[in-house]
Amino acid sequence: MKQVLDKMKLVLLLLCLVLHSAVSTPTRYEPNWESLDARPLPEWYDDGKIGIFIHWGVFSVPAYGSEWFWFQWLDEKRWYLQDFMKDNYAPSFTYQDFAPMFHAEFYDPDHWADVLQASGASHVVFVAKHHEGYTNWPSKFSFSWNSEDVGPKKDLVGLLADAVRAKTNLKFGLYHSMFEWYHPLFLQDQANGFKTQDFVQAKTMPELYELVNKYKPEIVWSDGEWLATDQYWNSTEFIAWLYNDSPVKDTVVVNDRWGNNTRCAHGGFWNCKDHYVPSTLVPHKWESCLTIDRKSWGYRADTVLEDVYTIEELIDEVIFTISLGGNILINIGPTSRGEIPPVFEERLRQLGKWLKVNGEAIYKTHVWSNQSDIVAKDVRYTARTEGNATTVYAILPDWPATGNITLGSPIASASTNVSLVGYPGNFQYTSLGSGGITVTLPPIPVSRMPCEWSYVLRLEGLQNQKTELDESAYSKNLQALEMRKDFPMPKVPSFRVV
Amino acid sequence: MKQVLDKMKLVLLLLCLVLHSAVSTPTRYEPNWESLDARPLPEWYDDGKIGIFIHWGVFSVPAYGSEWFWFQWLDEKRWYLQDFMKDNYAPSFTYQDFAPMFHAEFYDPDHWADVLQASGASHVVFVAKHHEGYTNWPSKFSFSWNSEDVGPKKDLVGLLADAVRAKTNLKFGLYHSMFEWYHPLFLQDQANGFKTQDFVQAKTMPELYELVNKYKPEIVWSDGEWLATDQYWNSTEFIAWLYNDSPVKDTVVVNDRWGNNTRCAHGGFWNCKDHYVPSTLVPHKWESCLTIDRKSWGYRADTVLEDVYTIEELIDEVIFTISLGGNILINIGPTSRGEIPPVFEERLRQLGKWLKVNGEAIYKTHVWSNQSDIVAKDVRYTARTEGNATTVYAILPDWPATGNITLGSPIASASTNVSLVGYPGNFQYTSLGSGGITVTLPPIPVSRMPCEWSYVLRLEGLQNQKTELDESAYSKNLQALEMRKDFPMPKVPSFRVV
Amino acid sequence: MKQVLDKMKLVLLLLCLVLHSAVSTPTRYEPNWESLDARPLPEWYDDGKIGIFIHWGVFSVPAYGSEWFWFQWLDEKRWYLQDFMKDNYAPSFTYQDFAPMFHAEFYDPDHWADVLQASGASHVVFVAKHHEGYTNWPSKFSFSWNSEDVGPKKDLVGLLADAVRAKTNLKFGLYHSMFEWYHPLFLQDQANGFKTQDFVQAKTMPELYELVNKYKPEIVWSDGEWLATDQYWNSTEFIAWLYNDSPVKDTVVVNDRWGNNTRCAHGGFWNCKDHYVPSTLVPHKWESCLTIDRKSWGYRADTVLEDVYTIEELIDEVIFTISLGGNILINIGPTSRGEIPPVFEERLRQLGKWLKVNGEAIYKTHVWSNQSDIVAKDVRYTARTEGNATTVYAILPDWPATGNITLGSPIASASTNVSLVGYPGNFQYTSLGSGGITVTLPPIPVSRMPCEWSYVLRLEGLQNQKTELDESAYSKNLQALEMRKDFPMPKVPSFRVV
Amino acid sequence: MKQVLDKMKLVLLLLCLVLHSAVSTPTRYEPNWESLDARPLPEWYDDGKIGIFIHWGVFSVPAYGSEWFWFQWLDEKRWYLQDFMKDNYAPSFTYQDFAPMFHAEFYDPDHWADVLQASGASHVVFVAKHHEGYTNWPSKFSFSWNSEDVGPKKDLVGLLADAVRAKTNLKFGLYHSMFEWYHPLFLQDQANGFKTQDFVQAKTMPELYELVNKYKPEIVWSDGEWLATDQYWNSTEFIAWLYNDSPVKDTVVVNDRWGNNTRCAHGGFWNCKDHYVPSTLVPHKWESCLTIDRKSWGYRADTVLEDVYTIEELIDEVIFTISLGGNILINIGPTSRGEIPPVFEERLRQLGKWLKVNGEAIYKTHVWSNQSDIVAKDVRYTARTEGNATTVYAILPDWPATGNITLGSPIASASTNVSLVGYPGNFQYTSLGSGGITVTLPPIPVSRMPCEWSYVLRLEGLQNQKTELDESAYSKNLQALEMRKDFPMPKVPSFRVV
Repeated sequence: MKQVLDKMKLVLLLLCLVLHSAVSTPTRYEPNWESLDARPLPEWYDDGKIGIFIHWGVFSVPAYGSEWFWFQWLDEKRWYLQDFMKDNYAPSFTYQDFAPMFHAEFYDPDHWADVLQASGASHVVFVAKHHEGYTNWPSKFSFSWNSEDVGPKKDLVGLLADAVRAKTNLKFGLYHSMFEWYHPLFLQDQANGFKTQDFVQAKTMPELYELVNKYKPEIVWSDGEWLATDQYWNSTEFIAWLYNDSPVKDTVVVNDRWGNNTRCAHGGFWNCKDHYVPSTLVPHKWESCLTIDRKSWGYRADTVLEDVYTIEELIDEVIFTISLGGNILINIGPTSRGEIPPVFEERLRQLGKWLKVNGEAIYKTHVWSNQSDIVAKDVRYTARTEGNATTVYAILPDWPATGNITLGSPIASASTNVSLVGYPGNFQYTSLGSGGITVTLPPIPVSRMPCEWSYVLRLEGLQNQKTELDESAYSKNLQALEMRKDFPMPKVPSFRVV
Repeated sequence: MKQVLDKMKLVLLLLCLVLHSAVSTPTRYEPNWESLDARPLPEWYDDGKIGIFIHWGVFSVPAYGSEWFWFQWLDEKRWYLQDFMKDNYAPSFTYQDFAPMFHAEFYDPDHWADVLQASGASHVVFVAKHHEGYTNWPSKFSFSWNSEDVGPKKDLVGLLADAVRAKTNLKFGLYHSMFEWYHPLFLQDQANGFKTQDFVQAKTMPELYELVNKYKPEIVWSDGEWLATDQYWNSTEFIAWLYNDSPVKDTVVVNDRWGNNTRCAHGGFWNCKDHYVPSTLVPHKWESCLTIDRKSWGYRADTVLEDVYTIEELIDEVIFTISLGGNILINIGPTSRGEIPPVFEERLRQLGKWLKVNGEAIYKTHVWSNQSDIVAKDVRYTARTEGNATTVYAILPDWPATGNITLGSPIASASTNVSLVGYPGNFQYTSLGSGGITVTLPPIPVSRMPCEWSYVLRLEGLQNQKTELDESAYSKNLQALEMRKDFPMPKVPSFRVV
Repeated sequence: MKQVLDKMKLVLLLLCLVLHSAVSTPTRYEPNWESLDARPLPEWYDDGKIGIFIHWGVFSVPAYGSEWFWFQWLDEKRWYLQDFMKDNYAPSFTYQDFAPMFHAEFYDPDHWADVLQASGASHVVFVAKHHEGYTNWPSKFSFSWNSEDVGPKKDLVGLLADAVRAKTNLKFGLYHSMFEWYHPLFLQDQANGFKTQDFVQAKTMPELYELVNKYKPEIVWSDGEWLATDQYWNSTEFIAWLYNDSPVKDTVVVNDRWGNNTRCAHGGFWNCKDHYVPSTLVPHKWESCLTIDRKSWGYRADTVLEDVYTIEELIDEVIFTISLGGNILINIGPTSRGEIPPVFEERLRQLGKWLKVNGEAIYKTHVWSNQSDIVAKDVRYTARTEGNATTVYAILPDWPATGNITLGSPIASASTNVSLVGYPGNFQYTSLGSGGITVTLPPIPVSRMPCEWSYVLRLEGLQNQKTELDESAYSKNLQALEMRKDFPMPKVPSFRVV
Repeated sequence: MKQVLDKMKLVLLLLCLVLHSAVSTPTRYEPNWESLDARPLPEWYDDGKIGIFIHWGVFSVPAYGSEWFWFQWLDEKRWYLQDFMKDNYAPSFTYQDFAPMFHAEFYDPDHWADVLQASGASHVVFVAKHHEGYTNWPSKFSFSWNSEDVGPKKDLVGLLADAVRAKTNLKFGLYHSMFEWYHPLFLQDQANGFKTQDFVQAKTMPELYELVNKYKPEIVWSDGEWLATDQYWNSTEFIAWLYNDSPVKDTVVVNDRWGNNTRCAHGGFWNCKDHYVPSTLVPHKWESCLTIDRKSWGYRADTVLEDVYTIEELIDEVIFTISLGGNILINIGPTSRGEIPPVFEERLRQLGKWLKVNGEAIYKTHVWSNQSDIVAKDVRYTARTEGNATTVYAILPDWPATGNITLGSPIASASTNVSLVGYPGNFQYTSLGSGGITVTLPPIPVSRMPCEWSYVLRLEGLQNQKTELDESAYSKNLQALEMRKDFPMPKVPSFRVV
């Protein structure tokens, strides 16, 4: 079915191109989900798999608790934030008073771009405005509460957009929160049961149009939508404009956070919740976002090493997500002075080093019929199709100490070849018929291993190389998810609304 | 004519009351100047004569140059402000960075109310928002740029309104700037030739309605209107609502700053320019505002005594203005910590001390036929009518050393009495017929003088007590203004836009 | 006796001069009180009468409570200072954290000098270091806790010394606190029962020598001595050096605060306590210091007018003090930004205006046989002797409304003349023999009065012009002090240690 | 010779113990180098090998350039520091103004202790005071310039001392700078050609005694001595007291920085220069200190990953240093808020992980006759003697891909065993006689390797196990140092004075 879908996609794409260039009567999307959901996802996004998320804002100044500092301090009244404020600031200190301390004096977009490029990611998603309402660009609609008026005195968004475009081949995307915790007009609309739209008209929509027109992001990563419906937010009007008339209409990708009724239902890729781990195969492109500092998306000044994903954990997450058809968006939080903390830089560079060897098992891949092995349950699969041939990748979290490994899912054909990505030659194996194959692993000295952390076996010419996914496949695939139970899941604080 | 007018006014007032209460079909004002200008000025304003103006805002933090600090620093690039910023702040310091330093920790509205009361003023006009756009109240339309979000963490307007109402008999008024120097929506409207009204709809009007509904000011003292027409500002709609439906519709007074076409032409009292000194008698109620620190309306941290009005100068200004039919609005600038500097408190208390003795020559008075004396040219006149009798007051800036004074303007009748306000008994005088009178001043020891600084002769039963003002009177009266030439005019900086 | 003393003084002085210049074997003082107390007080000090005291330091930053802020906050734990710190600062805020906020950016020593000159004072005493230990000059012995290292980044002492010497004829003096509340070496010496002198050797003495050598002050106004004896402080050694070998040895004047055993006993002029009001005539030159803001020597940001001496009260204090043989030292507290608050400037200029007219009754005067009048009890006396003639000045706090005044103390001679200082001609009077005189006061219009606030009658050629003070005179003089009871005494906070 | 020395040491030690405990006439050291240098180095120091250095101070606030910020800004006028200050601070900002921003609010000594313990180090050296003069403890001799008076408001030294002692088995040491760049008394002594000792008497010595008495550090790591002789500093008096009478007299270790004539000559261990790499074998215990952020000892807010030692480089440094008989002191710089940046924590934990496997080749080892192999030039040696047996460790920076390795230096005996530390069993080898041995390396799968980064071969029963070092050995050993040429040396900035 995947192939059929792929072919249809291709045909549709060609059709579009033909219609667009020749007949010049392009499809126009209507401001309703039926129409908008019908738009094909631009291919670059599914191909690229890996994005880097960057959370930066006034919350980077207290750098304590999380980027939800303001809300957790004032509304949730968490004791440790209460104590932090009591111990370190005057009682009359407001959250806004942190803004002048957001100096960003070491902000070096070229260096950031270099790190992003080195990570092997295909795109970056930069927080333009979080729930605090502070805009990281000089918004016309956020006078005195933006990065040029108070704090860095710079257009943080614009500077990164320029550097990313000049120095890398990554796509540039923007995160934008629809609501703001403490904007009085939002609170007023809320008090009115969202029958008024003062906030949407004064802030949300003007800002979104301004952002797109000014910075031409190829991802609009929406958030902060959950308290009201898409109708309150005027979401479909905006997306219709984005798809029909905006400067990024052909390439832009959006997520699904456009109203309390849209997650896992409407929009572009599904981004159902933070660190989304689906419980079955998802019949739609989806994305999981996670943060290298497990406890926060924004920088914390008291992060200890234990809070930080190890490279092994991070690569496991990448593989797990991609084997299930998702994209992964990996977050870092720069300091208020503008530094990407070295431990984050290290993780991104380690990831890039691994991808440099193993990228063929990641980029442009699709879900295989099995997402994890029936026998070697911690082995995961991806697949990559070129022409009629599909190469299957079995990804091993550890190198077996026994000298061989039995995989239950692949069925060998006469022309099957097994090799280690990054290592010369083919490996010997024994076909077990429908019972799989046993691959003999040669005694490779550590110094000749192609990489560290995870190892990829390339399976070419399998008998069951075709990915025939049907409804029943979803349930069969649950074994993959059961495996997951043992995986050290990052503990996303339970209180998190998003 | 004054009497006729006064009677007509009374009749009209009674008529209004009758119509209002009995027939219950109140006059409704139309949103055009013809209709709005026809509304009679509430009497309390003309009777009260003296108001206190209070300029407070973020500008009180740098407290240098003037309350136009931001504009003079960034746009006019005045060298001393450039130097001040260069010498004392980091280059990335923005004006908004001053806001967290606006502590107002010593703000004591009860004490302020006490000082206001002691001054003898009938009303106070408090700056709710100056051209900087920072609102001294928690405006819904100025998120993160208001006195609760950043700085004092207090509703400065509300606290003063409450104290003034609880502790004094002064009317509470508010100053509001229509434009904001650096609001991006205003700048955008301006760039669009004021064909768009984004700023008016997002800020000016919502704020004005919010202010009136929330604080019920009895004066709406508008400013910052001069760059655009009243149509851009939607001024007449607002004033019509203010007069017809607002909670202060019966008592509210406005000035004339509602568009670049309205000063000295439309609105309530005319407030043609700062420290307005008319060049002829003005056929409309007017007001002159001046500031005790001659060089600034906002507090300055480097004020020297020479910059401060002496009490003699201040009383001269009061008398001069009132003799010409104006009201006077006397400004003080509190510190960012919340203090009324003692030298300002002293001037207000000195003024109150003088008014306690001489108030009958000030409150509820009207212009006399002569505003200054023909012979004793530095003597000024006010007049007060009760029933048929009009008492004329000749106000002497100094006590003649010669033992008598000849006044050219008053014509004595048989029943004329001359006395010193605050001193027992009548003075002897010699009538010079139409040439005036010569009053004999008894040798009063300094310790028995009723007051200091200026002395008021009460002239009862004059033959020419009636105020017969006509067009020609205006020109005759120019002598008063010529006198003015010698008066030490406060040097209002020439660059001041208002 | 005064004359005898004066003559002896003159003879001694001449003798000194002769010895000094001719024989060139100058007197050397021994480091004991007997020797040091024998040094004649340089005449300029007794002649000048009026000094201006300036309290400036880190305490000018919080500017709340008083210049004892640190001690009252931490040791006395006054509730309002506790509240102030709790409300406005983080719990970890230390007193030292105020220092970087001591900007002094508007410090204009030339303007200060101008104000000092205008006050009519003969000298200024500037706080070089208060009990906080922060030195207003770049002391070698106070690294990182002085005005060049942290805060103003200026030599505050040096700049004022230069300006005062360049622009005025005032003598320049320095205040210096021997102890420091929280210096750990002082606290250690104290804990050791002052048997160790680590603090004196590391701080007090090195600093005093540094101050004198560097700034050549003509007054060393010592304070903060009361917790230990002069022996602990090594005071006599220092003063002996000051009188024998310092660059100001001939002109310098010191006070009496050199150990807990020296006040009102040893040193130069006696300065027994703050706002010293002696209970009998003092057989030694003394000084009273008071502060225009009654509640604090340092600037307070919440001073209200009621806290400020009126000019009438201030002139009363001056006259009272000088009539009893004292000098007066009048204090002002500049702001941390460097301004002399205008209300203080006003008082100093008002005082100077009064002295310009009445200075002959103040400067170079001495105590008369009566310090206040026997009959007109609120009239005070000073006297001035040139050659054999002594002019007596009767100073009237108010101008009698009755047209005459009876003074009980002066006894007229045939050649007695009575006149009003600043007014032409002599007044008529009636001699009452030993019962005094009744002076007829002419009806002077207020505009011809020579001054305001207090009026001075000049009594020349009195029969009892000679000042014959003996022990019994001291007790007789108690009437003057009884009068004092009705005087609105400044309420010096009772807790004040000094 | 080593053995002889060792035996002599042992004998001396026993002698000392006997004398001390039995006869109770302990050796007293004289305040001269001859006597002091004769004291045996306490064994714990040579045994422990690895220490952690912690640089923390006011320099951690700007966190730019290096811990020499103040000097490089003001004296060297480095352009980037000039720019940094110009761009981010007011011109009047002084270095002292950084101190109140030193918050240390996340300082968690227990966590620090945990990290230190995990690193495998035997001791920690904490900066008590750097050249800035700011004391990280509440020194009596640094009023207002210490961590309790301004900044953290905590005894940073005391808190860490307590935690290290309570939670770990590490020895606690202190770094102390004798001079201070900008202390006026030091500058004065310097201007006097160090003929005066005001600074030494007021600061250096009182502080050192205070530190030792209060915190009982087992290392006194002196620095900042180079501008003057040990006589100026009174160093020998201090060390004599330290060895004879201080609370740590038996266990304390000092380095050699006690005067411009003492480095590599006198004191305890030699610490000739930062990141000391000797050019021959050193006939004295020495130490090399290096910093994980290559460019700075203090925390920098703009460190990029490239600046940070990789774990491979760090382990190479450890091995290189220890193979040459040195100790290594590895530095980290915490943030001003109190965090050990995760990348530093990671390096320390990685090092600890390696040492947990390979510690037997490090702790309590001594120099072998060859410090690097004659043939396999990047292999280094350590040796460990118990009783008569000496085990030699050959440390391989990489795992040979060839399946065997030929070592030229070890000469096999009949009973020689070769094994991999952390891996079971012995390896086969071929003896090449005096030409060394060829060890066969079995094909170990990566997952069974005992560790990463470097691998240790244990050589037991070698024929040439004895370490016979003589003068000639030093020169032979130069090959080790020649190897070093290819090693990626951290680029210590050339300008560094220390």
